[in-house]
Amino acid sequence: MHNAILLISCSDKKGITAKVSNFIYSNGGNIEHADQHIDAESNTFFMRIEWALKDFSIEKDMIAEKFKVLASEFSMNWDLCFSDEVPRLALFVSKYVHCLYDLLLRHKAGQLKCEIPLIISNHPGTKSIADNFSIKFIEFPIDADNKFVQEQKEINLLKKENIDLLILARYTQVLSANFVNQFPNRIINIHHSFLPAFIGKNPYQQAYRKGVKIIGATSHYVTEELDAGPIIEQDTVRVSHRDSLSDLVRKGEDLEKAVLNRAIRWHLEKKILTYNNKTVVFD
Amino acid sequence: MHNAILLISCSDKKGITAKVSNFIYSNGGNIEHADQHIDAESNTFFMRIEWALKDFSIEKDMIAEKFKVLASEFSMNWDLCFSDEVPRLALFVSKYVHCLYDLLLRHKAGQLKCEIPLIISNHPGTKSIADNFSIKFIEFPIDADNKFVQEQKEINLLKKENIDLLILARYTQVLSANFVNQFPNRIINIHHSFLPAFIGKNPYQQAYRKGVKIIGATSHYVTEELDAGPIIEQDTVRVSHRDSLSDLVRKGEDLEKAVLNRAIRWHLEKKILTYNNKTVVFD
Amino acid sequence: MHNAILLISCSDKKGITAKVSNFIYSNGGNIEHADQHIDAESNTFFMRIEWALKDFSIEKDMIAEKFKVLASEFSMNWDLCFSDEVPRLALFVSKYVHCLYDLLLRHKAGQLKCEIPLIISNHPGTKSIADNFSIKFIEFPIDADNKFVQEQKEINLLKKENIDLLILARYTQVLSANFVNQFPNRIINIHHSFLPAFIGKNPYQQAYRKGVKIIGATSHYVTEELDAGPIIEQDTVRVSHRDSLSDLVRKGEDLEKAVLNRAIRWHLEKKILTYNNKTVVFD
Amino acid sequence: MHNAILLISCSDKKGITAKVSNFIYSNGGNIEHADQHIDAESNTFFMRIEWALKDFSIEKDMIAEKFKVLASEFSMNWDLCFSDEVPRLALFVSKYVHCLYDLLLRHKAGQLKCEIPLIISNHPGTKSIADNFSIKFIEFPIDADNKFVQEQKEINLLKKENIDLLILARYTQVLSANFVNQFPNRIINIHHSFLPAFIGKNPYQQAYRKGVKIIGATSHYVTEELDAGPIIEQDTVRVSHRDSLSDLVRKGEDLEKAVLNRAIRWHLEKKILTYNNKTVVFD
Repeated sequence: MHNAILLISCSDKKGITAKVSNFIYSNGGNIEHADQHIDAESNTFFMRIEWALKDFSIEKDMIAEKFKVLASEFSMNWDLCFSDEVPRLALFVSKYVHCLYDLLLRHKAGQLKCEIPLIISNHPGTKSIADNFSIKFIEFPIDADNKFVQEQKEINLLKKENIDLLILARYTQVLSANFVNQFPNRIINIHHSFLPAFIGKNPYQQAYRKGVKIIGATSHYVTEELDAGPIIEQDTVRVSHRDSLSDLVRKGEDLEKAVLNRAIRWHLEKKILTYNNKTVVFD
Repeated sequence: MHNAILLISCSDKKGITAKVSNFIYSNGGNIEHADQHIDAESNTFFMRIEWALKDFSIEKDMIAEKFKVLASEFSMNWDLCFSDEVPRLALFVSKYVHCLYDLLLRHKAGQLKCEIPLIISNHPGTKSIADNFSIKFIEFPIDADNKFVQEQKEINLLKKENIDLLILARYTQVLSANFVNQFPNRIINIHHSFLPAFIGKNPYQQAYRKGVKIIGATSHYVTEELDAGPIIEQDTVRVSHRDSLSDLVRKGEDLEKAVLNRAIRWHLEKKILTYNNKTVVFD
Repeated sequence: MHNAILLISCSDKKGITAKVSNFIYSNGGNIEHADQHIDAESNTFFMRIEWALKDFSIEKDMIAEKFKVLASEFSMNWDLCFSDEVPRLALFVSKYVHCLYDLLLRHKAGQLKCEIPLIISNHPGTKSIADNFSIKFIEFPIDADNKFVQEQKEINLLKKENIDLLILARYTQVLSANFVNQFPNRIINIHHSFLPAFIGKNPYQQAYRKGVKIIGATSHYVTEELDAGPIIEQDTVRVSHRDSLSDLVRKGEDLEKAVLNRAIRWHLEKKILTYNNKTVVFD
Repeated sequence: MHNAILLISCSDKKGITAKVSNFIYSNGGNIEHADQHIDAESNTFFMRIEWALKDFSIEKDMIAEKFKVLASEFSMNWDLCFSDEVPRLALFVSKYVHCLYDLLLRHKAGQLKCEIPLIISNHPGTKSIADNFSIKFIEFPIDADNKFVQEQKEINLLKKENIDLLILARYTQVLSANFVNQFPNRIINIHHSFLPAFIGKNPYQQAYRKGVKIIGATSHYVTEELDAGPIIEQDTVRVSHRDSLSDLVRKGEDLEKAVLNRAIRWHLEKKILTYNNKTVVFD
């Protein structure tokens, strides 16, 4: 038997925790995890609550229906998921392979609870890796002229393949607003800098020129504005004058792998809520 | 108006979250923070729940009485506190002043919600600092012969002064089991190593001899066994062959200040529960 | 007896290390520390070399004269210092006291080898702290109208007091280009963000709005361009959605203290060279 | 053209730096890197000096012969290497694959300048990975009875294959003193704890039971005494009560990969000297 997970956000009012937990308890559910947070500035209440479906008296496919009443009482934004759902991921890559390998090996080791049926690239170079892991690889070469058409084909493919989450694993093409808006909070990017420093192209080179003593990596949901979506996770590592640009790249790539992996893990575990272009991560 | 805080631990069963949050809601309280954790190994449920007393229908001094019924239904270990309670701390020091100054300045800056009416030392050297901050300073010189008698006097003084929490801010005397047992989970020590490495005397020298590449500091509740009580917080910092023993001391002292401060802060905010010689910290 | 320290930068050529170390050895000096670095991009050679003056055959005040020959052979930028020189610091502060206290206490503990004869502020509030540490405190209230005049008075005072290094310990006034240019590489600022992110005003608020998961602090030499001088040191600390703006400030202030302290220490130990608006730190 | 690298340690005396750099300069070499360190306690001098062989007047295979005179003047321990030498590594593994994959992928990406011609295991499970990377895989099942014989076979194989460095990439067999002594400072192990805490078996379980708030990993040269050889590199990561034992393992494995990789990299770049069961790492 598996668990149900509710992600909730709404204006804070008395009784939310009591009524939600009572909804679960009175129907025979055992709460295994519960986290909540109130953003004092905006008076917004956030909750993640997970309970065992064993002995739960409401059928799985009726839970949403029954919960609706409570949800509308508090005007909740809410999302109901189940721990036995296995999201389907598409990885978008270009020429860099470090994040790709890292994700595929973690997936193989059972660390990421998802399926990875599809790798999309604007370059042919990583096809052999996809083959090695028996994953479908589709190349969509993109230039200024064909961008709209190619993106439309990608969207069709992603829908046909029932993809739940898109991972930009150092994908070098900027997605159009039209594309992004098809997948709100469902595209995760890794940017190779400590955002908002060094937005855009060649962040390692920017960092090297600036002479920073620490470099970073940032994973965020993709929105229309480049490198400006809600930040999910960041990490940093120390560098010095002894580090050449290629040392920065090498150290940074290790950060990228770690940060992207954590962001994806939290998304898969339904631990992330977004608001005001920021995230609540119940890790 | 202030908040009430409940710290709860008990065997996990269905309904705890629901009934506790309902107890608060049905009496008109607004839950501001709620954290829970289940230790899967021992099937232990832990909770910290905080609610506004504004509009709460139970008088402050009757809450414990009313909550008892629910507590006994689940055989809870529980503790009820109020955010307007200001714990009284006694600082135990010897010759080192860095933690002492750090705590006194943070207290002065309003970072630590407590009173510090008393500094106890086995050396006279820090009296001038106590004077400077207008805090009572009592010296209890201790040797093998007078230890029992002096500790008894200290205990009497601490009780007379209504001290809630004892901080060993690099206090060099080992407290006797008899002393420790008077203040269970109410004595916080800072040990200048990454425990359980380098227990006991001269941990920086031990670390230096060993040639470690990272040193640490550990804050823990004091139990009968030396440097072995439940760990509250730890942190580490990188060292190299270029660091002399005195560099280790200097870097380590900064860690000690940071780690001890966080441990005290969490204790004062009632964020720590202990079990199996470990801690749950709802930070 | 004390040590001599040479800081050297020049175009890289064969023989620099050999000739410099031979200059020292052939005159009876024992080299205690030697670090060098070549910036491959610009083909620049950097060196810090320190030797014992015990048994050194050249009189202390003749060393520069004798070294000149070698220096001009390689067109060196060079600086000769002595370990018994005690630089004189002026601390510039406004209302925040955490960095001020931190520096004064470290100085008192013998961690910073310098004199601190002067505190300058645009507010009267920290005078009592200065008094407490027996340091001269001069207030220069500054507004748009009197800025030029007040800065001129400050410059005169700093010269009269033979100040070697200016520390902006959360000083809120922006110094004019005219002022800055009087003290090249001799003004160290602490900025409360991970530069180049969040330049200018209210960086903690900017970070909070942006929803970053890590905040930072940066110490740098002050140049004409605001918050853009050569970075000496940076550090970062993790934050989460649970951290309010005031939590960011509290955590950040601890970073500021640590980062500013390291930058000053390295400057005092003559471990920093600058080039291309970057630093080499031989730590 | 390539570089020559000298690693030197000896009692500190006047003139070492001057004479060594003069040896290089007077023969036409350009020094590209030079690091030195004096251990004040034991008065030991350490140096790593690297110079371009382009225009160097001594034939490569005569350098050692010529340097001997200087070396014996100062009773140096010394080692001469060349940047075009490509060390040959043997990886020892058991069932865990994370370090193995990490090293093979970094090697493939050109991050580790070595050959990896051989993988030795006491289990058959990783043969397919070795095959995938076209590396010879030899299984040596080991039990109490056959240990001496099997180790002897391993030693013969390692000599026959001209292996320069042995990497224990989570190899679960303890090597005998006899084996270890064949490869002094040429066996690098990764231990999955912050040594000297949690020596021996199941360090993650030990850490979990102890309730530490930070876990670590340590890479060290293997000596006769278990987990007690000179530490090359360590790193740590934060854990909390929310982390199960398997979370500790997952987080720890990422540390192991990073720490082992850095240790190997520094060894391959001839940046490590050992003394008093400690290391000097000129990173």
